[in-house]
Amino acid sequence: MPSPSFAEADAAGARPPRRVALLGSTGSIGRQAVDVLEAHPEAFTVVALATGSNAGLLAQQAARLRPAVVALGDASRLRALDLPTGTARVGGADALEVLATRDDVDLVVVATGGVVSLRPVLAALRAGKVVATANKETLVAGGHLVMPLARTLAADVATEHAADPYASPLAWLRPIDSEHSAIWQCLVGESMRSVAALVLTASGGPFLDASPAELAAVTPEQALRHPTWRMGAKITIDSATLANKGLEVIEAHWLYDVGYDAIEVVIHPQSVVHSAVRFVDGSLKAQLGTPDMRLPIQYALTYPDRRPSPAAPPDLIAAGRLDFRAPDEVRFPALRIAREAGRLGPRASAALIAADEVAVGRFLDGTLAFTAIPALLEAAVERFGGTATDAPDVEGLVALDVDVRATFATTRFGAPA
Amino acid sequence: MPSPSFAEADAAGARPPRRVALLGSTGSIGRQAVDVLEAHPEAFTVVALATGSNAGLLAQQAARLRPAVVALGDASRLRALDLPTGTARVGGADALEVLATRDDVDLVVVATGGVVSLRPVLAALRAGKVVATANKETLVAGGHLVMPLARTLAADVATEHAADPYASPLAWLRPIDSEHSAIWQCLVGESMRSVAALVLTASGGPFLDASPAELAAVTPEQALRHPTWRMGAKITIDSATLANKGLEVIEAHWLYDVGYDAIEVVIHPQSVVHSAVRFVDGSLKAQLGTPDMRLPIQYALTYPDRRPSPAAPPDLIAAGRLDFRAPDEVRFPALRIAREAGRLGPRASAALIAADEVAVGRFLDGTLAFTAIPALLEAAVERFGGTATDAPDVEGLVALDVDVRATFATTRFGAPA
Repeated sequence: MPSPSFAEADAAGARPPRRVALLGSTGSIGRQAVDVLEAHPEAFTVVALATGSNAGLLAQQAARLRPAVVALGDASRLRALDLPTGTARVGGADALEVLATRDDVDLVVVATGGVVSLRPVLAALRAGKVVATANKETLVAGGHLVMPLARTLAADVATEHAADPYASPLAWLRPIDSEHSAIWQCLVGESMRSVAALVLTASGGPFLDASPAELAAVTPEQALRHPTWRMGAKITIDSATLANKGLEVIEAHWLYDVGYDAIEVVIHPQSVVHSAVRFVDGSLKAQLGTPDMRLPIQYALTYPDRRPSPAAPPDLIAAGRLDFRAPDEVRFPALRIAREAGRLGPRASAALIAADEVAVGRFLDGTLAFTAIPALLEAAVERFGGTATDAPDVEGLVALDVDVRATFATTRFGAPA
Repeated sequence: MPSPSFAEADAAGARPPRRVALLGSTGSIGRQAVDVLEAHPEAFTVVALATGSNAGLLAQQAARLRPAVVALGDASRLRALDLPTGTARVGGADALEVLATRDDVDLVVVATGGVVSLRPVLAALRAGKVVATANKETLVAGGHLVMPLARTLAADVATEHAADPYASPLAWLRPIDSEHSAIWQCLVGESMRSVAALVLTASGGPFLDASPAELAAVTPEQALRHPTWRMGAKITIDSATLANKGLEVIEAHWLYDVGYDAIEVVIHPQSVVHSAVRFVDGSLKAQLGTPDMRLPIQYALTYPDRRPSPAAPPDLIAAGRLDFRAPDEVRFPALRIAREAGRLGPRASAALIAADEVAVGRFLDGTLAFTAIPALLEAAVERFGGTATDAPDVEGLVALDVDVRATFATTRFGAPA
């Protein structure tokens, strides 16, 4: 499908994007996206909602937002879904792509999980839609597929005016997570040629000062207590191992087209500085905020504008002090392993993120020690991406994902003693 | 003189500005500006240099930079000045305006002191030149005169493309000081409609924790030891009283067209965060750097681009921690007095900055106690700006400056016991 030209998009009223398809509307990010969309009825129309199986919440959201269409992954419950008059329902394997490419959609919010989310992301970009994504696989596994599309959309605009906010690939593929949103916010109005390094901050998780012996004995209950952010179980464990930060390094590499040597990680326990950019002249810009995902979600929806939000601003005086230290890659090797996977290429990165799903699941099930998580990641990168330098397409990535999960879910790898 | 249109300026090669007139080339800021200009010969041509009396250094600078013209305030030494072939010399009361409005000048750097510097600033803006100013009176006393000119130049560009870097008044009147440069850097790519508050940081000076009794006994030698920045005597004393931060609040009001209630001051002893902007969505952007004036000077010259600079980047990990606290306006009342002067209007602000010159001079001479500095400022604001709401022109401001200095230099106001 050819992308519409910049002028066509403007003429169609698609800039700023107002007509939203929200994929994954009932998860943590999806529900907060609904909050943001409902807070700004003057700015947005919700055209489409989709979720996997939470039919009850989907029906409630549809009753309030009155979208043109909803999709439900669980086909058995689709027909019984109670929807307002005028809201259609779709099902089937390609429902997300159907929603993401509708003529009456300008912006697709991707809050679904897994590598399969790459399909609607790619379809939306090919149709010239803006994509705001909270899906980590989009960039970790599919960065080589999505970024060329975003760059082409941006280049079409740049030929008309280099300083246009839509002349940046980030206007087309918008990150929804606090660190990448922070870097994006620090980059607006700047040229990528001016960037010396990206500085990702990490809270360090609950075991920042734990000894190796203490780390080996960590229980799921301990790991689920994140010091600053209240999040889902998966991402909380990923914060505790620093695997999350490692995945963010790979995402940053693709999003900003910056080499791994120029992506730094700094431990910042208070999580007030969400991330920063260092420029060639020695200047450093940082974005600060309270830990409230509604802020980066809203920024991804309103860029290049900002609108009032319920997120409380950070209070430097109340904070009193902000601390910074270097990450310890000996006690937290997942960061190093992720960096190596990123350098190896798309197949290794895709293996890493799939393996991390398995590893965290097994840790939570009690079949893998906390300190065995990075060992499993390293084994997966070695086995599936160690020598391959190819750049798989979506089908290849989905197949790889299945392989990695099957391999490490069924081995006795790293079972607790 | 009519300003050239945006298209004319582009066609003439004036954007980005490359041809520089440097007024005040031998002072602290002027010498560092020469360093920056010499570091980027590919980007800048120095067309004109001017200084007051340091003929020796001016001749050295001219020998290296080979400007088309130099000006020397001390007319008695102008003829004897040893200049390279092809460098002309000018003198006379209007020499700075002559240099600032030359056809072959695109950018005027104003590193001269005093309210008289408003004349070349206004002349340059009227001629459609970019002005980068380190002169505090430009905005504290003359904000109501310079900003309408900068806004008109920006508006001419904005009609063609709102996102053009020259559609901002800051592209035309560029601040050279670390706090306002920080705010400017945080604002690039953002709309002023998105700004909730400006956050100026202050080191707090050497007496941050001094008791009232200790403050009353402060000697010039103690006050000249600034904890983080190495600067001239005047600005070091102003940092110790917080008068400097008060003047910066007034400058920020004019530069960014933000009300006084939305300009906050935070004490940050490490001076790593140079200042910040809080946005309506709860996001806060901060600019951080080492204390090196070459960075904001260079940014004012290269905006909207950045170039490598000798300024070392800030190292968060080496810094370890950054502290913040509220300013104490009881022990340091100059901040409150400046805010009140700003609210009263241009005459009160002009009286304040003139009175501060006198007060600091007298403190350094030993004829005024440290704690009497704010009392003198308050008396000057009361006497010269307390009820007047007019907006003086340059002649009015110069006359007021003379009046304030005469009044407070000759009274026995606040003489140490």
